[in-house]
Amino acid sequence: MYYIGIDLGGTNIAVGLVDENGKILADISVPTKAERDWREIVKDMAEVSKKVVQKAEVSIDDVKGVGIGCPGSIDNAKGICTYSNNLKMENAEIAEEFKKYLDLPVNLENDANAAALGEYEINGKGAESFVFITLGTGVGGGVIIDGKIFRGFNGVGAELGHTVIAADGEPCTCGRLGCWEAYASVTALIRQTKAAMEQNPESMMHELAKAEGRVSGRTAFDAAKKGDAAANAVVSKYFEYIGEGITNMVNIFQPEKIVIGGSISKEGDYLLKPVIEYVRKYDYNRYMKKAEIEIATLFGDAGIIGAALSAK
Amino acid sequence: MYYIGIDLGGTNIAVGLVDENGKILADISVPTKAERDWREIVKDMAEVSKKVVQKAEVSIDDVKGVGIGCPGSIDNAKGICTYSNNLKMENAEIAEEFKKYLDLPVNLENDANAAALGEYEINGKGAESFVFITLGTGVGGGVIIDGKIFRGFNGVGAELGHTVIAADGEPCTCGRLGCWEAYASVTALIRQTKAAMEQNPESMMHELAKAEGRVSGRTAFDAAKKGDAAANAVVSKYFEYIGEGITNMVNIFQPEKIVIGGSISKEGDYLLKPVIEYVRKYDYNRYMKKAEIEIATLFGDAGIIGAALSAK
Repeated sequence: MYYIGIDLGGTNIAVGLVDENGKILADISVPTKAERDWREIVKDMAEVSKKVVQKAEVSIDDVKGVGIGCPGSIDNAKGICTYSNNLKMENAEIAEEFKKYLDLPVNLENDANAAALGEYEINGKGAESFVFITLGTGVGGGVIIDGKIFRGFNGVGAELGHTVIAADGEPCTCGRLGCWEAYASVTALIRQTKAAMEQNPESMMHELAKAEGRVSGRTAFDAAKKGDAAANAVVSKYFEYIGEGITNMVNIFQPEKIVIGGSISKEGDYLLKPVIEYVRKYDYNRYMKKAEIEIATLFGDAGIIGAALSAK
Repeated sequence: MYYIGIDLGGTNIAVGLVDENGKILADISVPTKAERDWREIVKDMAEVSKKVVQKAEVSIDDVKGVGIGCPGSIDNAKGICTYSNNLKMENAEIAEEFKKYLDLPVNLENDANAAALGEYEINGKGAESFVFITLGTGVGGGVIIDGKIFRGFNGVGAELGHTVIAADGEPCTCGRLGCWEAYASVTALIRQTKAAMEQNPESMMHELAKAEGRVSGRTAFDAAKKGDAAANAVVSKYFEYIGEGITNMVNIFQPEKIVIGGSISKEGDYLLKPVIEYVRKYDYNRYMKKAEIEIATLFGDAGIIGAALSAK
């Protein structure tokens, strides 16, 4: 049995043919061209799906379903994207439209939830409760309880990044002040880095940013690793912001496992160790078994794998 | 069929005989004397249980189980309170000890989780996801997903009050800075009231506190209702703190229903309306159905009813 997994992003449509164990047999990525009518995007998703099946040299009869991870608010039961600002969708009947081109059962999920399921299936299988956190342009998340994606009653739950950790703090894109996303995303890290650079004209961060042509999510990390004190202060505080939010999630969910993904997670142990230390110091659970906290391993593939396995 | 529900608190042991629909047929409350060895407390719980069954004039053969709501960290599967600082318990085998005196199936739950189940059974039945929040001395909570108490993998989940909403803010009893509990509990409200009284020597709050003999959770509310500006500022800000945490819970869980209990919930609509307004303004869900937010109706009975029904 095989499943088609589609990770629909603002930039690319990534499609993979995935086996029951979450292994990608073949994949193809094409540009989304997000400004198009969503029906054209869906048509492309179906056409690329057919090509992926051919590329994997698998009979279409052995493909049992299609999973689509889509940014925005998803009505899973109806297969509708009720709203996505990235993709200009409003009540887009994606599942129905897709079947016009490829008649297979379609399961539509929020993209972060699909990625969470992918990480769960590969790295968290069997965990009674599982939280996936992505630290990227924003802070996203997904929660798996008893092996199932937790969506909330209306499908838009687990917006973990949009929880205030600093009331009246930094403005967030969602309209609140002080969301976790406004402190722990790469966007926030860049803002924090720039502020520290202004305060510390002698910092190595200036040199590194100049060489890269911009201040990036790497600037403070790279300088800190080379011993720059100002950069180290930025990174240490950034770890605390990550830890603050994760401690909140631990106190709320006491998940058996937490996996941290997104671009910043590529820092690996350099990030993981201080974050774990922070969470262990402050979580409410002093007497029971603790949540395991790990770095994601699938990166870009989590969306394809999770979407595919959501169709099982 | 009947169930015995026991709400074990630091001050009282409240025991009720409850029918399948959550109706209390009879109840008795005795002092906990929390300083005693926990085995003596369990013995009292069992003796009072027998008396309650007699008081209700029900045959013990029609009593199918006992539910106990206990403060602290609970190992539900084993019926053990692994730790409770209120009751000086460490790995207290409550279920086994109880059966020495009354041989019925015993289900041990955290007290806040039991109360959440009680409110769910009476006021939230059928909701796919349900969050109960108590605003009292602390801020507690319980989460019901698909009709079941969500406990986390280790039984100590849903510590909703111990989520930081103001990083580096007010110290919390749990050791963190800026927990929701440190802003939205009655304890916090009293602190906020005292601070405002110091700043506003002309405020009516002084007069009311003098009449009551102390600054209480009512001082600012009562003065605000009489038109005192300083008190109104305290109460308005306090509503925002409540709303901030509830908005976080909405963005995390998107529960079908949220019920607010605890002593402050007796303010009813005066509290509910501004809190709902705040949540509706800031929650992340702009396009899908919204969580219903209501005031609890069971108050003290929620613990008994929920504990009893947890034994079903």
